[in-house]
Amino acid sequence: MAQARDRADPLAHWRDRFELPQGRIYLDGNSLGPLPLATRVRMAEMVDVQWGHDLIASWNDHGWIDAPRRIGDKIGQIIGVRPGEAIVADSVSANIYKLLLAIAETRPKATHILTEAGNFPTDLHVAAGAARLLGLELRSVERAALTEAIVPETAVLLLTHVHYRTGDRFDMAAFEGRARQCDVPILWDLSHSVGAVPLDLAGAGARFAVGCGYKYCNGGPGAPAFLHVKQSELAALSSPIQGWMGHAAPFDFTDAYRPAPGIERFLAGTPPMLAMAALESGIDLMLEVDRDALWAKSVALFDHMAELMAARCPQMTAITPFDPERRGSHASFAHHQAWPINRALIDAGVIGDFRSPDVLRFGLTPLTLGFADIWHAVDWLARILDEERWRRPEYQARGKVT
Amino acid sequence: MAQARDRADPLAHWRDRFELPQGRIYLDGNSLGPLPLATRVRMAEMVDVQWGHDLIASWNDHGWIDAPRRIGDKIGQIIGVRPGEAIVADSVSANIYKLLLAIAETRPKATHILTEAGNFPTDLHVAAGAARLLGLELRSVERAALTEAIVPETAVLLLTHVHYRTGDRFDMAAFEGRARQCDVPILWDLSHSVGAVPLDLAGAGARFAVGCGYKYCNGGPGAPAFLHVKQSELAALSSPIQGWMGHAAPFDFTDAYRPAPGIERFLAGTPPMLAMAALESGIDLMLEVDRDALWAKSVALFDHMAELMAARCPQMTAITPFDPERRGSHASFAHHQAWPINRALIDAGVIGDFRSPDVLRFGLTPLTLGFADIWHAVDWLARILDEERWRRPEYQARGKVT
Repeated sequence: MAQARDRADPLAHWRDRFELPQGRIYLDGNSLGPLPLATRVRMAEMVDVQWGHDLIASWNDHGWIDAPRRIGDKIGQIIGVRPGEAIVADSVSANIYKLLLAIAETRPKATHILTEAGNFPTDLHVAAGAARLLGLELRSVERAALTEAIVPETAVLLLTHVHYRTGDRFDMAAFEGRARQCDVPILWDLSHSVGAVPLDLAGAGARFAVGCGYKYCNGGPGAPAFLHVKQSELAALSSPIQGWMGHAAPFDFTDAYRPAPGIERFLAGTPPMLAMAALESGIDLMLEVDRDALWAKSVALFDHMAELMAARCPQMTAITPFDPERRGSHASFAHHQAWPINRALIDAGVIGDFRSPDVLRFGLTPLTLGFADIWHAVDWLARILDEERWRRPEYQARGKVT
Repeated sequence: MAQARDRADPLAHWRDRFELPQGRIYLDGNSLGPLPLATRVRMAEMVDVQWGHDLIASWNDHGWIDAPRRIGDKIGQIIGVRPGEAIVADSVSANIYKLLLAIAETRPKATHILTEAGNFPTDLHVAAGAARLLGLELRSVERAALTEAIVPETAVLLLTHVHYRTGDRFDMAAFEGRARQCDVPILWDLSHSVGAVPLDLAGAGARFAVGCGYKYCNGGPGAPAFLHVKQSELAALSSPIQGWMGHAAPFDFTDAYRPAPGIERFLAGTPPMLAMAALESGIDLMLEVDRDALWAKSVALFDHMAELMAARCPQMTAITPFDPERRGSHASFAHHQAWPINRALIDAGVIGDFRSPDVLRFGLTPLTLGFADIWHAVDWLARILDEERWRRPEYQARGKVT
């Protein structure tokens, strides 16, 4: 039955556009997206021609200098904002930092930054550092208490749209509506959303966002991140990291800083062009995809997996919401032996990941996965559980990266 | 005679390790270093095997997670600091920002950040932003007045070791000695020094530095930057950008931030691994080089060029110090028509660069340039000047990047 669904899948041909390892089922595209074949060609051209042959002239001749804005505009199409409202820069961590400080500076009467307890660590850590520097409190509250915690004294609410562990998705428009009542800006972290779930930031009334390119957008390991600021907010915001690439005229080499009029003001240093090229290639591919069909298949893959898991792996507890409006594109299951179970799965060629303390996480990336893949993955998991293979000592050791 | 010197040059063989464009003389390795042939192979392996085939497992299996520290330790050998005292992270701009804030926080009685007027723009701009945020003044003073301007109320002195435009080099040990009298920390920007001039930061008493990898270290366009903090200073310093990679245990996914005990505390986001791989390849090559011989050849190339320029291009004003102890590895000359002259040179296949308002800058990179190259470059320049070729209208138009 799974094979029949794969034959009928209108997105099935997309997997031919990726390098996928033989004999493995890769369910970790939500952590590191696989290599698009076009990126291999693009990187060779970048290295051999643009760097190797054309050298310094490439800043003009191959549009390197425009890349942060050009790729930002492409990402803008995916997240639903206008040209000039998104730019590629730095890392998610640095972008959260820049925007938290820039936004907080416009709210001198505020007393605290608000976020969700159990948010992705870098969001929490960066917010804690920013709050310390600004003399603000950092309030981390449980999800159920978040709407009540939004008050006029909130400098900014930092939310991760899709939760990295549980897959829970916030209702962006509803939160924006609630926050608007208190005139509180929300900074959205879209790292687990972009390229995965339908996004319409403008439609939802969102004004500020950051996100990464190395997950569902297949932009390469540690790909540069992006940030979004709505046009109407730009003029009031200053980046704390006033790097030369954010200057109105970087190559005038003037002593005085004058921020770029547009979103370029949030650039800092020279962009890492090799990483930028891979990111652009991944984004270009994503722009070709019918994103409604992408999400429809994500929903179908999830339902398929949820049914199989309930039937074959009742020992695992499903923790991702079944309602597609309330989740992202990964499925998570809890088990007190999640770590060795994940190692046993990897040994069997099923690559998901473990998230502390007890979660198995499976990325459902519709471009590279089919229904039969999910069937085989659950089949392996059922065997590992039924035979208690995870008890083997070799599955206990931990690497630096889990 | 130049050809005879090339035949006798013990470093002549190094150019075979680089991709160098046919028919051009590349004098811009101080802006973007050329492509090492080994890097082409390394990038293909990185893309095809590490990303394409091994995917997420590469964080452990190919040492991605250790790359910032591993490459930092290699850079540490080049700049003369111990293992654990340098790390690769972010951009030069972001690293200046992080260290300025971290250092200033330890000096609550200070009133200002001190730097040189005409320092590289990003240094000035980032310092201005940091000063604004900290409620400090930014004092930019002329070089001749710098030693007098160091006072106990100086939070930190930000100096670029080799000046991007003039090539002037500060006497690091002398400035450290002077600053120590007032207990003032110096943050050194080594962007135009690393891989170019002899560096012994520990010997000079330096405690803090940043630098880039895309110039003399041939690490690729916009390669990730590095920072150095002396071990004895680390415990007192906190990064303002508390990203997850700077956490003591990033993969514990805890809500509370606890900085890494070592220099890893200055990491922020996920490192851009494609760019990191190219950087490491460039650094690996530099570690193979006899750096005393490298500097000796830089000095010889400079003297050769200075003599030829004096004889053949008296219209140009040499602005780089002749004393090798007082300069870096590039040679700059002023002319009120520097812009069109540079365009005419590029048209002739001689790639130097222009720096506003009136400077022609030539990178003397000993691994890829010979004495005959310098002779031909000056010969072209003499012709352009003598024939006033720079008057041609096509040489007036400016690109975004100069």
